[in-house]
Amino acid sequence: MLDLPHPLVLASGSPRRRELLSGVGLRFAVRPAGIDETPLSDEPPQNYVRRLSTEKAAASMDSPLASPAEMVLAADTTVEAKGEILEKPLDSDDAYRMLRLLSGRDHLVHTGVTVSVPLAGARRSSTILVTTKVTFADLDDATIDWYLATGEAMDKAGAYGIQGVAGAFVERVDGSVTNVIGLPLAETLALLRESTST
Amino acid sequence: MLDLPHPLVLASGSPRRRELLSGVGLRFAVRPAGIDETPLSDEPPQNYVRRLSTEKAAASMDSPLASPAEMVLAADTTVEAKGEILEKPLDSDDAYRMLRLLSGRDHLVHTGVTVSVPLAGARRSSTILVTTKVTFADLDDATIDWYLATGEAMDKAGAYGIQGVAGAFVERVDGSVTNVIGLPLAETLALLRESTST
Repeated sequence: MLDLPHPLVLASGSPRRRELLSGVGLRFAVRPAGIDETPLSDEPPQNYVRRLSTEKAAASMDSPLASPAEMVLAADTTVEAKGEILEKPLDSDDAYRMLRLLSGRDHLVHTGVTVSVPLAGARRSSTILVTTKVTFADLDDATIDWYLATGEAMDKAGAYGIQGVAGAFVERVDGSVTNVIGLPLAETLALLRESTST
Repeated sequence: MLDLPHPLVLASGSPRRRELLSGVGLRFAVRPAGIDETPLSDEPPQNYVRRLSTEKAAASMDSPLASPAEMVLAADTTVEAKGEILEKPLDSDDAYRMLRLLSGRDHLVHTGVTVSVPLAGARRSSTILVTTKVTFADLDDATIDWYLATGEAMDKAGAYGIQGVAGAFVERVDGSVTNVIGLPLAETLALLRESTST
């Protein structure tokens, strides 16, 4: 579907990003970058995900395993509900709090995607922001408890995965669906294509 | 998540509808209904899917295996592009034609969902229509050929599956995502709940 002129590195440990990229036939190495993910004080979520995806790409290129010939793809996804940034829940109570906050209203999912390519001895980095609006049905306590018992909530920003059984909570999406999973595929493929066409 | 007062029968052979329903913890028997799926002349797609879901539910209840105590759930999904109804492709050329038609533009996905419940010796049937707008990226011939080679296109209305690798073609969705897979889950659960509350 897309032939890349350089070896590709995915600077993310997310199994969902890996599956999305493998699904479209891309081959890549996985090299997650450990960075400080604390938001700056009053940092808007859009700036936060752009900054984190840029920092993840940079950290991955600083790794002793990195090669100057590689392209790096990094991403960061966050959920914004009533102005609050929702990251992965700390524990089951935190997940309950997030799902209660999402119940019966709209929220936004923001992903920053960064592609860094080798260019005449230097590198060129490009970052995009993709935002999707998601509307949840009303969730009663029994439904939230049932969902927490499935174990799906804990490793996901905002405490849900649209591709899992929480798909039943999502009344509507306005925008990219793969963005809500963690990597907006159509936009990411376009960015990879543009970044490698000279 | 939802306790039903009657045994549930799914009048559909679609593995995707089965997975969506199982995913939310429902138990059900599967009894696909064979009906004539030819559209009436000039039948609008919205009427077509409502009529077919109603007829599928009725045919399933006419089966010698049916019991008056059962609830029946039936659904029919179709894709409408430039006013044309796209069903499952007849062959690879037909799938190519459909994907070329979808490329770079919006289309609509319509699902009719019918629930029939036993009610004081009789039955009550309710049918809803759910419509989602889907926007495809531009697809070049190499991408379409690559997709046809995956084999994903052939058993799906409109020749694509949003939950598969064709998710990469979908720039945006406006509305229910599970509707595009073949069964709008939030709306179907609400219909099951309403149909069984007296």
